[in-house]
Amino acid sequence: MMTDTERRAWAYLARVAEPPCVSLTALIAEIGAVDAAAAIARQQVPRGHESVLRATRARAAEDRSASDLEVAHRCGARLITPDDDEWPGFSLLALAQADTGERGGVPLALWARGPARVDDLAAASIALVGSRAASSYGEHVTGLLAGELVDHGWGIVSGAAFGVDGIAHRSALASGGPTMAVLACGIDRDYPAAHSRLLAEIADRGVIVSEYPPHTTAARHRFLTRNRLVAALSNAVVVVEAGARSGAVSTAAWAVKLGRPLGAVPGPVTSATSVGCHELITDGRAALVADASAIMTLARPDGVAGPDHGPARGTDGLTPVQQRVHDALPGRGAVTIEEIVFSAGVEIGEVRAALALMELGGMVAMEGSGWRLP
Amino acid sequence: MMTDTERRAWAYLARVAEPPCVSLTALIAEIGAVDAAAAIARQQVPRGHESVLRATRARAAEDRSASDLEVAHRCGARLITPDDDEWPGFSLLALAQADTGERGGVPLALWARGPARVDDLAAASIALVGSRAASSYGEHVTGLLAGELVDHGWGIVSGAAFGVDGIAHRSALASGGPTMAVLACGIDRDYPAAHSRLLAEIADRGVIVSEYPPHTTAARHRFLTRNRLVAALSNAVVVVEAGARSGAVSTAAWAVKLGRPLGAVPGPVTSATSVGCHELITDGRAALVADASAIMTLARPDGVAGPDHGPARGTDGLTPVQQRVHDALPGRGAVTIEEIVFSAGVEIGEVRAALALMELGGMVAMEGSGWRLP
Repeated sequence: MMTDTERRAWAYLARVAEPPCVSLTALIAEIGAVDAAAAIARQQVPRGHESVLRATRARAAEDRSASDLEVAHRCGARLITPDDDEWPGFSLLALAQADTGERGGVPLALWARGPARVDDLAAASIALVGSRAASSYGEHVTGLLAGELVDHGWGIVSGAAFGVDGIAHRSALASGGPTMAVLACGIDRDYPAAHSRLLAEIADRGVIVSEYPPHTTAARHRFLTRNRLVAALSNAVVVVEAGARSGAVSTAAWAVKLGRPLGAVPGPVTSATSVGCHELITDGRAALVADASAIMTLARPDGVAGPDHGPARGTDGLTPVQQRVHDALPGRGAVTIEEIVFSAGVEIGEVRAALALMELGGMVAMEGSGWRLP
Repeated sequence: MMTDTERRAWAYLARVAEPPCVSLTALIAEIGAVDAAAAIARQQVPRGHESVLRATRARAAEDRSASDLEVAHRCGARLITPDDDEWPGFSLLALAQADTGERGGVPLALWARGPARVDDLAAASIALVGSRAASSYGEHVTGLLAGELVDHGWGIVSGAAFGVDGIAHRSALASGGPTMAVLACGIDRDYPAAHSRLLAEIADRGVIVSEYPPHTTAARHRFLTRNRLVAALSNAVVVVEAGARSGAVSTAAWAVKLGRPLGAVPGPVTSATSVGCHELITDGRAALVADASAIMTLARPDGVAGPDHGPARGTDGLTPVQQRVHDALPGRGAVTIEEIVFSAGVEIGEVRAALALMELGGMVAMEGSGWRLP
C-alpha cells in the first residue's frame, strides 16, 4: 500500500512537467518518486539527469499535490502510478519511446475516475475512433461494432468527442459493457461540455482517464498527445470514419508508431468522412475491417482468444524468431532487452517487435524495464 | 489479306470445339488454319495431336462456316482470327494456359460486332464489373467511374449484364467513349433480352465480342469462361460491387490468375453487395480503389501514363496499324490526315482511330488541322 508521502510525491510529479516527460520518468525510475519529487523541488538532480531541470523548472516551486488529490477525491477519482497494481503495462509506449521522443513516452501517472479498472480494460479493449462530424452511416456502424464487441467481452476505448467517439461510448454503455474515455484535460472537467451527461455515465459505470492533473484545460497539443494513450490503452485501434484530416488519423498514426494493430472501416467512396479510412487501407497502414469479427481477429492475430474465450497461451503459433526470444526468457525473474538480444542472438528491433506481439498474446510480460514469462 | 478459304477454315474451327480449346489452338499453330480444318474434318491429325480428336469429334462432320459468316455479315459482325491485325495479344492468357487448363487458354477466334477495334480497346481499357443486383450506391459509383475513365481516354469493358455491367456500358456511351461488351453467347443474340437496346447501341458505337459462334446460347459454363476474356481484354479489372457469391468474383479470380491488376471499390459495411469487394481487399487479392485516379494508377502501375497523359512513350506497344500511322509522321512539321492515309496505306477511319489513341498516349500531337510527332 502506498503511503501518503508517496502519493503526494506522485501527485507533485504528475503536474511538475507537461506529460509525457521521458527525462522525468527516467529520474523516477532511478531514485523513486519521493526522492525524485524532493530533487525536482530543490532543482538539484543526480548527475546525468540534468535535462529534467528544464522540463520542470516552470512548475517546480509550486506544489499543488494536496489540492489535486483533494479535487480528485471529491469527484471520485484516483491517482494511478507505476507503483500501483492498476497501472497498465504501456510496454509499446516504452518500446517506442526512443523513436517518438518527448511527444511520446509513458505517462508520468494517470488520473482515473470511475469503477472500471484501467489495467483490465487496457488488456481487453478496442479503441473505436473517428470523425467528430460523423455521417449517419458512421454513427450507425459505430453503434453496431461497439455493441457487438461488448457482447464478445471487449471494452471500448475512445476520446469522448462528438461523433464516432461519443457513439462508441454510448453504445458500449447501452450494451452493458465497460468503456474508457481518455481525455485531453483534467478528469474533473467535462469536455466537450455538451457531453457532460455522457461523461457522468462513463464515470459511473466505466472509467475516465487522463494524464493531466485536475483543472487542466483541453488544448490542441494535448489532443495529439492524448491520442497516443488511446492507442496505448487498447488492443487494437479501429478508425470507423475519418475525413482526410481527421484527428482519428493522428490516433491511427500513433497505432502504427506503437505497432498496435490498426483497422479501418470502409464506407461509400462518395462520402468525405470515409476518405481517411480508405487512405489508411490503401497505404497499407490499416487493415480493412468490415465487422466485429474482423476487429477481434485483428486484436488477437494469433486467433488464440478474444477476452471472452480465456487465454490459451501455447507457443505453437510462434514464428522462429519469436520462439527464440521466448526461449531467452528465464523460468523466473525478468531480463532486459539487451540480455534477450544477447542470448537469443536476434537483432534488437526484431526482439522488440517479437516481445510486443507476444505480450499481446499474453505469452510474455513486462516488469519494470525488463521482461519475464507471465 | 485473308482468302475466303482461310476465313471459312477459321469459321469452321471456331465452332468445331467448345472454346477455348488448347489442343486445337496448338494444332492450328502448327499446320495453319486451312490444313487444321481439313484434318479435323477427316478426323485424321498429325501424330502428337490426337487429343484434339476428342475435343472436336461431336461437331467435326458439320460445317456451318458459310452460314456463320453469313449470319455475322447480316448483323454487321466480323470474324477476327490470330491472323488478323485486329487480333489482340492475349499474352497473359497464353502465359497462364499451362496453369488454367482447358477452361483457360487463348480463344480460337473472336466474333466482333461494332466499329471499335478490339485490339485498340483491349490496349486501353478498364473492365468494370459487379453485381447484377447492384444497389443504388453501386449504380451511382459505376456511372461516375465509367464517365471519368472515359474522360481520361480509357475504354470500358464489361459483360452487358444487369446492374453494374449495364451501367458501365451506358455511362461510357453517354460520355462518348468506346465500350466493349464480352458475351457468353453468339454476337447475334441479345442477352439479357431486356438489354437489346443497349446491345444495339454498343454495336453501333462500341463493339460486342464473343468467342462463341453465332446462335450459341448463353449457358452457365460459358459465363465463367467468358469472364476470363473480360479480364484478358482490359488493362485492369475493377469490381465495383459484389455480393459474396457474385459472378464478378469469378472475373476477379481470372484477373488474379492472369496477373491482371485487380481493384475493388469499397462500400458500406452494412451493404450485402459490398461484401465481395471487402473480401477481395482484405484477402489482398484486390487493391482498394476509391476513385478513377486510383484505377488509372492500378492499370498503369509504372505511372508512365494513362492513355491520356503520356510523356511520349516508346512505340513498342503499338499495333501494326498504329505503327504504320506513326511512321507516316515526318521528323519535323505536321501533315494532314489525307497525307497519312496515302503514305501509310491505311484506311482513313483506321488512321483517325489510331491517331486518337496515340494522341491520348502522348505519341502524336495535333497542330492546326494536321498531325505531328510531339
